[in-house]
Amino acid sequence: MSDAGRDSVPPAPTLRHADPDNTMRILLATDNHIGYLERDPIRGQDSINTFKEILQLAVKHDVDFILLAGDLFHENRPSRDCLYQVTGLLRQYTMGDKPIQVELLSDPNEGKAASYDFPAINYEDPNLNVAIPVFSIHGNHDDPQGAGPEGALCALDVLSASGLINYMGKFDLPLSEADAQTAGIAIRPVLLRKGTTHLGLYGVGNVKDQRMHFELRSNRVRMYMPRNRDEWFNILLLHQNRVRHGAQESVPEGMFDDSVDLVVWGHEHDCRIVPEPVAGKPYYITQPGSSIATSLADGESIEKHVALLQIQDKEFEMKPIPLRTVRPFVLEEVVLSEAAEEEDFELNDQIAVSKFLKSRVNALIDQANKLWDDRNARAVEDGDEPLPPMLPLVRLKVDTTGVSEMSNPIRFGQEFQGRIANPRDVLVFHRAKRTTRSSKVTIDQPELSIDDPELSITEKLSKVRMQTLVKEYLAAQELQLLGEGGMSDAIQMFVEKDDSHAIQTHVTTALKALMKGVQANGEVDEGDLDNVLVKVREQHETEYAERSRTGKTAKGKGKGKARDEDSDNASVDSMMMEVDGGGSDVDFDNDEDLDVPPPTKKTAPKRATTTKAPAKKAPVKGRGKKAVESEEEEVIDLESIEDEDEDEPAPKSTKRTNRAAVLR
Amino acid sequence: MSDAGRDSVPPAPTLRHADPDNTMRILLATDNHIGYLERDPIRGQDSINTFKEILQLAVKHDVDFILLAGDLFHENRPSRDCLYQVTGLLRQYTMGDKPIQVELLSDPNEGKAASYDFPAINYEDPNLNVAIPVFSIHGNHDDPQGAGPEGALCALDVLSASGLINYMGKFDLPLSEADAQTAGIAIRPVLLRKGTTHLGLYGVGNVKDQRMHFELRSNRVRMYMPRNRDEWFNILLLHQNRVRHGAQESVPEGMFDDSVDLVVWGHEHDCRIVPEPVAGKPYYITQPGSSIATSLADGESIEKHVALLQIQDKEFEMKPIPLRTVRPFVLEEVVLSEAAEEEDFELNDQIAVSKFLKSRVNALIDQANKLWDDRNARAVEDGDEPLPPMLPLVRLKVDTTGVSEMSNPIRFGQEFQGRIANPRDVLVFHRAKRTTRSSKVTIDQPELSIDDPELSITEKLSKVRMQTLVKEYLAAQELQLLGEGGMSDAIQMFVEKDDSHAIQTHVTTALKALMKGVQANGEVDEGDLDNVLVKVREQHETEYAERSRTGKTAKGKGKGKARDEDSDNASVDSMMMEVDGGGSDVDFDNDEDLDVPPPTKKTAPKRATTTKAPAKKAPVKGRGKKAVESEEEEVIDLESIEDEDEDEPAPKSTKRTNRAAVLR
Repeated sequence: MSDAGRDSVPPAPTLRHADPDNTMRILLATDNHIGYLERDPIRGQDSINTFKEILQLAVKHDVDFILLAGDLFHENRPSRDCLYQVTGLLRQYTMGDKPIQVELLSDPNEGKAASYDFPAINYEDPNLNVAIPVFSIHGNHDDPQGAGPEGALCALDVLSASGLINYMGKFDLPLSEADAQTAGIAIRPVLLRKGTTHLGLYGVGNVKDQRMHFELRSNRVRMYMPRNRDEWFNILLLHQNRVRHGAQESVPEGMFDDSVDLVVWGHEHDCRIVPEPVAGKPYYITQPGSSIATSLADGESIEKHVALLQIQDKEFEMKPIPLRTVRPFVLEEVVLSEAAEEEDFELNDQIAVSKFLKSRVNALIDQANKLWDDRNARAVEDGDEPLPPMLPLVRLKVDTTGVSEMSNPIRFGQEFQGRIANPRDVLVFHRAKRTTRSSKVTIDQPELSIDDPELSITEKLSKVRMQTLVKEYLAAQELQLLGEGGMSDAIQMFVEKDDSHAIQTHVTTALKALMKGVQANGEVDEGDLDNVLVKVREQHETEYAERSRTGKTAKGKGKGKARDEDSDNASVDSMMMEVDGGGSDVDFDNDEDLDVPPPTKKTAPKRATTTKAPAKKAPVKGRGKKAVESEEEEVIDLESIEDEDEDEPAPKSTKRTNRAAVLR
Repeated sequence: MSDAGRDSVPPAPTLRHADPDNTMRILLATDNHIGYLERDPIRGQDSINTFKEILQLAVKHDVDFILLAGDLFHENRPSRDCLYQVTGLLRQYTMGDKPIQVELLSDPNEGKAASYDFPAINYEDPNLNVAIPVFSIHGNHDDPQGAGPEGALCALDVLSASGLINYMGKFDLPLSEADAQTAGIAIRPVLLRKGTTHLGLYGVGNVKDQRMHFELRSNRVRMYMPRNRDEWFNILLLHQNRVRHGAQESVPEGMFDDSVDLVVWGHEHDCRIVPEPVAGKPYYITQPGSSIATSLADGESIEKHVALLQIQDKEFEMKPIPLRTVRPFVLEEVVLSEAAEEEDFELNDQIAVSKFLKSRVNALIDQANKLWDDRNARAVEDGDEPLPPMLPLVRLKVDTTGVSEMSNPIRFGQEFQGRIANPRDVLVFHRAKRTTRSSKVTIDQPELSIDDPELSITEKLSKVRMQTLVKEYLAAQELQLLGEGGMSDAIQMFVEKDDSHAIQTHVTTALKALMKGVQANGEVDEGDLDNVLVKVREQHETEYAERSRTGKTAKGKGKGKARDEDSDNASVDSMMMEVDGGGSDVDFDNDEDLDVPPPTKKTAPKRATTTKAPAKKAPVKGRGKKAVESEEEEVIDLESIEDEDEDEPAPKSTKRTNRAAVLR
């Protein structure tokens, strides 16, 4: 990205003196994964309980708004229970008479639902009495899917339609083939002011890491910023892999624009909420981490926090707040062969081994319960109510290298029924070599991988059966006419995103393509039809292969198509570039050719509504909202710091492939 | 039901002179079936378009509120698109500054969500600026399902949590075994006042017809009414079969209490919205009918209407309003053998037959288009905008009795691509005898039956495969230990209600029961275990059979359990009595023994909140809402007109069966 903006190093993240009238108070949290294990008799309500705690903290700390960085929901299609509970909690804790003190300076209709009149920002709606606005981007779990009349939608869209959440960073709806090729990523900020403090919120919902990486490298990420951008405190929210998982499967920390002051990094579950400076960059990164452990991996055992983020002018301060409702979780790794020596027992004496493992688990339970007691004691000191104890999560990783046979871990766990929350999977066995792989899986999205060690037998079973079902279903169709190319992707969509129409959509589109092909071959009699079909189908296949390399794809079906096979990564995106694998390390010298304006469609509504905005606001009729004069409320016009000549029409690039890009 | 209340015949349904200040204006509609065929490229948006029209009519006719009688949603778990669109439309058209002129006299917290503080009636929430409240009961399509932390939930609960709908008539959450036995149906009204007019809304969400029938006959339907009930205009909303489908598979028109003035009958799709008197009863029945055709049956071809219902004191008037966005639909039945004689062609000359059928379909298309033009013309006369024409729905039922072979109806339909909205199923063939059955099916819920002639091949396929999937899944479990009894029900829940947990719930509960049984048999060694299990399992089976006859069942799993096999009827209920079939025509002489108070739990919250209610209302802070003095706002206390001694404790009836009831 460009080096426009100042190169001065930002001040250390503390506020010298916080002046209430000029200090924004923000509750920062992310990856709440509501609905995780919701059917579990013990842990079923963990995610919702902690989300409730977070909302209560927002009220207690009298924040101006709540900021979330994705994966509010664990399932792409949250259960009715989840949606109901989240709706109820948001209505209960974020609506009310508390006056809103942050003035919205950007267009309240930027990103609003096309079909409806209400604004995108809930507290700009005179019919809603909002006390604490919630701003969020989507994550890889709750990203937009489908191609209905309103385009791809996610669970946040529903909450946004009911006025309970302000959904940001949904930049990525391919509206047409042309769009899909040229869109890049355009980030239009939510601009807020409190007293002298000006805050720009730049949200980028999750996209596939490879694509994000590519867009950043090829200057196609356009942040639209006020001209006096350096007088603003700029927060960039994103939800991507930060830990490296092979070529381009993560986003480098140093790749963001120098105008950014703070990057809020969602998706990674380890709590690294205390801001960390980035070498050679003027911004800090805060990684709040998830508010619930969705895998029993090391990172998840770090104590979970949210934070009170205070911003005054260009200074900020982050006060971590430990979460009290999170289940205590401790894990340990033992290497049996070593243990056997130290404690002197026979590796193949199962009774002895099991006796040893039980002693370890008991030790871990005590340790976990102590964690809980200490945390509780601290809170009580600070004047909070004590909480009743929770069963802890305990995980013992056993390196069984050299051991011929191990006893059944599930039976082993039964012994701890009623003392731990996860008796079924307290033990995991592995051999030395497997360690790296399995830990990689858990860092990523374990819930979505069938090989996932964390999955219960039944979960795996049902997933497998789902795929069987889909394959059967497809078998029943005229499959010999269809390319297999997009099929496995579609199947994955069906299984992972619970998108029951992914298949149908793919089949329909593929068939349409075939029909067109057949027609192109003019009149054919029944006899020749088969040959024609085969011919067309091959052609179709080649095109698919091409497309999934260039990322070029059509509306809707693209969601199912242009993703790779890595079932660990649930992030789906319709325009990604396959830059890894098969000698595809592309030469990007002529990036500029790729740097094209966003669809003018995007800018049009903004202009249109600029004048309308105040009108929308007029009816607020002194309900104690927004302590600001309305003449200050005209919408700020933005400039792209990436691309000056953005009003040029898009080049008519009909079919661009990596090869083409290199050759030109 | 009792004959308490007056026996005078009500006035003819016209208002002599409507005094605006004392006249309630209500938009009456039902069975919007939003989401029906939502994936259909032509008809996909029909249901939502018409729902939008209905909301616009409510605004245009300046109504005090909207009244719906169930099946707002077609799918029990509406797609994200549906939920999003309905949420958006409700927010857009029902929120706003129009002052609410109907005062709520009943407890605003009656039926509120237990976990949250906001009231059950959205316009009592000071944080929402409601212009047109929407009141609705659930239907058989969108009825409560599941047994999550909040109990059974339906789509209306989600809309209610977001404050967009006032969900009434959810009386039926079995809280315990005892409950399930003794609950009956308790109807607590929403009581409204406008000037001198007092209106009681008595909502009864859909329950299985057999159960409703039984509850009515055995005096277990308790309407809680103000003491001066005769000064109120009382509306009963229900969603049941009105057309008879065999013993107790419908609800007789004459079975309701004489205090009722108007019955609003949902579920039946034929428009019979003009109020009809009931022989020997003082009340009228209005059957608005669906706002979309969900089957191509005769009843659905009647022009669709909603109505403006005006009520002043004890008088009312119903003004039907034709719906303009409904697709014109005509159907015709031809008997080929007769046609062959009249038009003199050979029954087995396929070309001639097909030529004849095409001429008939063409005639129907003209007829349908004329319908549309006339409707449009009428509207334009009344000063409305003309609408662009829609492709019509056309159905030709062909009696093929005596014809050996017919050509493929789908290929036949292709000829009409672009001229009708349903080319794929314009023709249905049947033989004389099948007529009655198939028409029964279509009157009922065709979408849920796999035999349903209206289902597309793919739809059937997927349903069948779903069931296969479930069976496979179960096969993988320790099935030999489980009773088959509840299984098929659970499977049906899975398929029809998209309740992916029905199976799991059933299995878990059944297994729990088994464990208990085994423990009851004290210490057993591995050897005997099998015998014990067999024994227990048989016992378990008998109990299940018993339960499904008596309707006694446990929380949650009941939803899956106590329903019969009739896949035509989607109405699910946990407490129904199987009074039909197998010599079970029970003697109800001692009904009184069955007439027991509702769980005291139900009355408790009411008391508790009576005093709280005004407090909740205080913060309304003159936003022009509710033009009424708050001292009038104390909650009216109700009496059950069914049951005077309702404060008696519930009789400790441990396990009541029909037999027991008869013997005593």
